[in-house]
Amino acid sequence: QKRYSITLLPGDGIGPEVISVAKDVLKLTGSLEGIEFNFQEMPMGGSALDLVGVPLPDETLAAAKNSDAVLLGAIGGYKWDNNAKHLKPETGLLQIREGLKVFANLRPATVLPQVLVEASTLKREVAEGVDVMVVRELTGGIYFGKPRGFRTDENGEEVGFNTEVYAAYEIDRIARVAFETARKRQGRLCSVDKANVLEASMLWRRRVTAIAEEYPDVELSHMYVDNAAMQLVRNPKQVFDTIVTNNIFGDILSDEASMITGSIGMLPSASLGSSVLTKSRFRLFEPIHGSAPDIAGQDKANPLATILSAAMLLKYGLEEEDAARRIENAVLDTLNKGLRTGDIYSTGTVSDLFMLKASLACFL
Amino acid sequence: QKRYSITLLPGDGIGPEVISVAKDVLKLTGSLEGIEFNFQEMPMGGSALDLVGVPLPDETLAAAKNSDAVLLGAIGGYKWDNNAKHLKPETGLLQIREGLKVFANLRPATVLPQVLVEASTLKREVAEGVDVMVVRELTGGIYFGKPRGFRTDENGEEVGFNTEVYAAYEIDRIARVAFETARKRQGRLCSVDKANVLEASMLWRRRVTAIAEEYPDVELSHMYVDNAAMQLVRNPKQVFDTIVTNNIFGDILSDEASMITGSIGMLPSASLGSSVLTKSRFRLFEPIHGSAPDIAGQDKANPLATILSAAMLLKYGLEEEDAARRIENAVLDTLNKGLRTGDIYSTGTVSDLFMLKASLACFL
Ligand SMILES: CC(C)[C@H](C(=O)O)[C@@H](O)C(=O)O
Ligand SMILES: CC(C)[C@H](C(=O)O)[C@@H](O)C(=O)O
Repeated sequence: QKRYSITLLPGDGIGPEVISVAKDVLKLTGSLEGIEFNFQEMPMGGSALDLVGVPLPDETLAAAKNSDAVLLGAIGGYKWDNNAKHLKPETGLLQIREGLKVFANLRPATVLPQVLVEASTLKREVAEGVDVMVVRELTGGIYFGKPRGFRTDENGEEVGFNTEVYAAYEIDRIARVAFETARKRQGRLCSVDKANVLEASMLWRRRVTAIAEEYPDVELSHMYVDNAAMQLVRNPKQVFDTIVTNNIFGDILSDEASMITGSIGMLPSASLGSSVLTKSRFRLFEPIHGSAPDIAGQDKANPLATILSAAMLLKYGLEEEDAARRIENAVLDTLNKGLRTGDIYSTGTVSDLFMLKASLACFL
Repeated sequence: QKRYSITLLPGDGIGPEVISVAKDVLKLTGSLEGIEFNFQEMPMGGSALDLVGVPLPDETLAAAKNSDAVLLGAIGGYKWDNNAKHLKPETGLLQIREGLKVFANLRPATVLPQVLVEASTLKREVAEGVDVMVVRELTGGIYFGKPRGFRTDENGEEVGFNTEVYAAYEIDRIARVAFETARKRQGRLCSVDKANVLEASMLWRRRVTAIAEEYPDVELSHMYVDNAAMQLVRNPKQVFDTIVTNNIFGDILSDEASMITGSIGMLPSASLGSSVLTKSRFRLFEPIHGSAPDIAGQDKANPLATILSAAMLLKYGLEEEDAARRIENAVLDTLNKGLRTGDIYSTGTVSDLFMLKASLACFL
């Protein structure tokens, strides 16, 4: 009997609902695969703010570090939008990413044949078969760069400023994760930057090009971020296999890519602390969708992104490939049965969540 | 007989071809409307680098400042991609924007009924009637912020860095342009930022909210940039009328928006130095597409974006509304006739450029 400890961070909005379903799925999968999970739920984000006044309590970070993997729901909500920076739910998310040193965020954007291209706002021939992996740098760049803040300039004007900054080693390590990821996919890596304007991007391009020599089997190309935002709409399939980019560009492009699949309620993500080929202690898994406060508590939220994040947790976090596949297949079977939640664009039948859960349980 | 001096900056790649057509169109329009144009062509971008060793010669900037308006083709090309920063064509573009102090970049993304939704990769019901105006801040933010550059950190690591920075007055003036623009459209303004993470964005949101009090008739909303990248794909029509955002987000989102229309070869832009309601000396007009070096010199490039930029020049730059409308109508009539270049996605007939020009001339 294998045992793993999992820290669950339900968070805000629909976070608790989707985590609760994912927990049930993990439990059942464990019982079928001979794995025992010890779950520990910890507060984070807005709910932690309400509870204890900080968005990431020390106990939460400690629990996360002491467990085998972390599964996060979603954080944020209108309620806390005007909070000062250190009291924003988002700050808690940045703190846990930094605290766990998970610098590599893998965000697959796949058009599942089961959800079908109806789910995308793109034409069928453009959307069909889209399968893009965005590898986003997650613990550097303008999200964390210093100096940052507010000051008054020589004319008495208020000024707000941030620093986009990358050191060579930060670029090298995310580049390696990206090359390794691309190698296991179609072997094509597109590095996205704004090297025609930004020095941070010039160094980015230079280092990615240098690391490419370690991966002669992977085809590397470079693209400016504005062009990448266009190509994702124009022809995602032909243009992209794996994308590697910085924190802020990755934030924007991965969300754009996910919307192109039309299945944002279906897309998981994994945040890793080292090369995907090496074993490392800390891993954080979360759906890429947000906390959707407007539909929270109404039994409408699609739990599949979190369930697929749990599958990624099993695969990348615990190397329990069989258990991961069991979950993935149950999700596909459930979709094949025609069960889906209301978030999936223009797909007629909206099933209630009970049916969806029952189906998952039966297909596991 | 009215007289205006126009500085033409053909630039690189397809720039010279499209500028040459736009010049002919302006000349003919002038002769029909009783306007005389004095054109002066000046080198800029890569071609200026090749000619005189800098991307923006002093004479070019001086000529631009001394003329009534500036029309730019496109700059850049693979040839100069690995140049040092001060020797990049793009640096010339940034220098002329800064030199002319054109801080407000208006980028309409419109699905023309004539080009029809076939041109877009989005489904007909999503693309039809899309009409978004992106107001991009053009002379501030991370494009110009200091400090910037390279350094070696305490561990001997090479570091590349840039500064995202906005002063209150920079935000206020672009906000006013945006509110005034929105007021003349559907009256809905969406300000896009990353205020949940970046201090520069927090100030942005605060100032835009303050300026909103001057425009009680305009409905203001705020959106995070990652969400905006999604909503442009999901439902551009319902979500957006006018968008206002910083330099880098505006770069990314306006290109994404333009691709959603499927008509990037058709989209003009205007860069203005003051409120659209006030008369100011400097104005720069350019198509939003790039220099497309791969199709340069083959008589394939779509000149319509530059021609429509010339129409914007007449309207916003010279207040020659009749002449502007004459050009716009000739473009629509030409498209109605079924004439179009190969860049417009999936639209059967590709006409040769001679026919297109002849049609324009006849409809002017
Ligand atoms: C909530 C926010 C801070 C976060 C980010 O920008 O990283 C989110 O958008 C994401 O992509 O995970
Ligand atoms: C060429 C480049 C510097 C420029 C920019 O980023 O501003 C271009 O992409 C644009 O949008 O006009």
